[in-house]
Amino acid sequence: MSDESSSKKDAYARAGVDIAAGNEAVARYKEVLGTWRHPDQLDAIGGFGGIFRLPGGGDRALVASADGVGTKILIAAELRRYDGVGRDLVNHCVNDILVVNATPMFFLDYFAAGKLDPAVAAAVVEGCAQACRAHNCALLGGETAEMPGLYSAGHFDLAGTIVGIVDVNDVPKPESVVPGDAIIGLPSVGLHTNGYSLARALIPRDEWTKRFNGGTYADALLAEHPSYYDSVRAIEKVARVKTMAHITGGGLLENVPRTLPGTVKAIFDAACWSVPPIMTELVRRGNLTYEEKYRTLNMGVGYTLIVPRADAEKAAAALPGAAVIGRIERRQPDEPQVVIS
Amino acid sequence: MSDESSSKKDAYARAGVDIAAGNEAVARYKEVLGTWRHPDQLDAIGGFGGIFRLPGGGDRALVASADGVGTKILIAAELRRYDGVGRDLVNHCVNDILVVNATPMFFLDYFAAGKLDPAVAAAVVEGCAQACRAHNCALLGGETAEMPGLYSAGHFDLAGTIVGIVDVNDVPKPESVVPGDAIIGLPSVGLHTNGYSLARALIPRDEWTKRFNGGTYADALLAEHPSYYDSVRAIEKVARVKTMAHITGGGLLENVPRTLPGTVKAIFDAACWSVPPIMTELVRRGNLTYEEKYRTLNMGVGYTLIVPRADAEKAAAALPGAAVIGRIERRQPDEPQVVIS
Repeated sequence: MSDESSSKKDAYARAGVDIAAGNEAVARYKEVLGTWRHPDQLDAIGGFGGIFRLPGGGDRALVASADGVGTKILIAAELRRYDGVGRDLVNHCVNDILVVNATPMFFLDYFAAGKLDPAVAAAVVEGCAQACRAHNCALLGGETAEMPGLYSAGHFDLAGTIVGIVDVNDVPKPESVVPGDAIIGLPSVGLHTNGYSLARALIPRDEWTKRFNGGTYADALLAEHPSYYDSVRAIEKVARVKTMAHITGGGLLENVPRTLPGTVKAIFDAACWSVPPIMTELVRRGNLTYEEKYRTLNMGVGYTLIVPRADAEKAAAALPGAAVIGRIERRQPDEPQVVIS
Repeated sequence: MSDESSSKKDAYARAGVDIAAGNEAVARYKEVLGTWRHPDQLDAIGGFGGIFRLPGGGDRALVASADGVGTKILIAAELRRYDGVGRDLVNHCVNDILVVNATPMFFLDYFAAGKLDPAVAAAVVEGCAQACRAHNCALLGGETAEMPGLYSAGHFDLAGTIVGIVDVNDVPKPESVVPGDAIIGLPSVGLHTNGYSLARALIPRDEWTKRFNGGTYADALLAEHPSYYDSVRAIEKVARVKTMAHITGGGLLENVPRTLPGTVKAIFDAACWSVPPIMTELVRRGNLTYEEKYRTLNMGVGYTLIVPRADAEKAAAALPGAAVIGRIERRQPDEPQVVIS
């Protein structure tokens, strides 16, 4: 683990992101929060979305998740391509609560800028509204803040919170995953909303408008984070889905273990999916190690579902792009929980 | 109205905040959102909190609100006083949904920094957790983002979303307010979370640690946004509360009209409450006009409740600090909705 951490730090530290600080913050949050827990708060599977049992609501629970779009926002701002980040954010949030099988109900945004440009704010919020509507999710409110001195002119930040609903009996159970199960992967279209500080360090600003892979670097970097909602619902119609993971920051290496019991490991066969060209480019430029690439980037897999072996082919056939990309095996206590070969 | 707008702009523009841009952004949001509305989304009273009818939940509805703490965060960051802003934010959110009579259920935070300092992040989140716990509200989740290039080192932003629950029959009805009703005011302790860009322009950084009113300017500027939850519940026990307003950005002039029918006006008697010394100082330094001070600052009134005349004395006696500060009168169409004399 110490080797992994130091190699990780090498690449990310160059980009100004301190993984150790992030982990320490999370550890400190646990200390801060550890002494009290609301009685209606349920254990969230792997922390993807918080679950709150609805008072007097029987088996129904609310699921909520807050997120941002990372420094993808800086690329969008500098290239003045504003509408995509709203869709990125909502789709990211939808996927996060989809992991616990929640159906979106409403979303609220937070938009903050050093100098408020109404056209920019409206373009960003319109992107949010489009993605909300696509999920029959209300854009219930939001906050727009002008904060001179905190953000540079032309820069802004965007965050959001989604709330959905689920029957607690439908919340996936990691302990249901057993050796022999299959892993279905849904393709990513690019970085989605993670790894942008690294990407900006490896692909400098003056290259963004240059040609790359039939478009520009900017096109590849700003490819929109897709929603996996319809895909997951389609697979659930034909297969028993045991657990799911949204592959965001931390990549396959950190997100998949959140949905597994400690007694099993996930073995991925990287030959079963394709890596988006922008990631191949980042790996090449940064000479990224196994740990770096699979922990910082999704490397082509946006979402995973674990299904019984018998359901694997049906699940993969349920929609274009889905594929069997791995299997579950028994794990010894000293083995890693994820292996990508 | 054009005179009001230009005088407002004078003071705020000096501080780098463009009121017109904010209003235009809101107008554009309406255009963007106007074409579609989720069927379970209810009209929110004055837009304080969004209301969403719980599917299959009978008369119960969820109420949600997103907010930030404005550039108060810059004062907190530069003086390294981190824990208060978490309480500021949660209490602000609690008050916003209290306006529609909602009881808090859970809260999620968004913390973003240029360089993540785990101790700072933990102090901020601990403040959120303290205020959540004080309201029996779960801190259900959150997002911590390290975004080099967007925020300067040492700077950070904090936003949050609260979700509460209400019986739709308990949502206050502006049309219930009639001439003769009384206005109860609850005292503010300072700027709460609004007017900080103006305050920072009028009280420069090098004065923050200087003595002021028995403490320092920083003490006065960072005085924490209180929760009015217990106060309002205490008043509701002895009086029929018709509508309420949380006095945030826009002050008495913009927040109170959101809870009134167009047929009445609110007449405030400024002699009935005291103005916190920090506001008197800001008014003096900025030579603020009536419009400027009552629209940018709360001027000593943090929350208002409208009650029948017969309940006014009981309501004011229900807790220390509460007072009858105004009355409702019939309004002609060309008259302002709020008059402070």
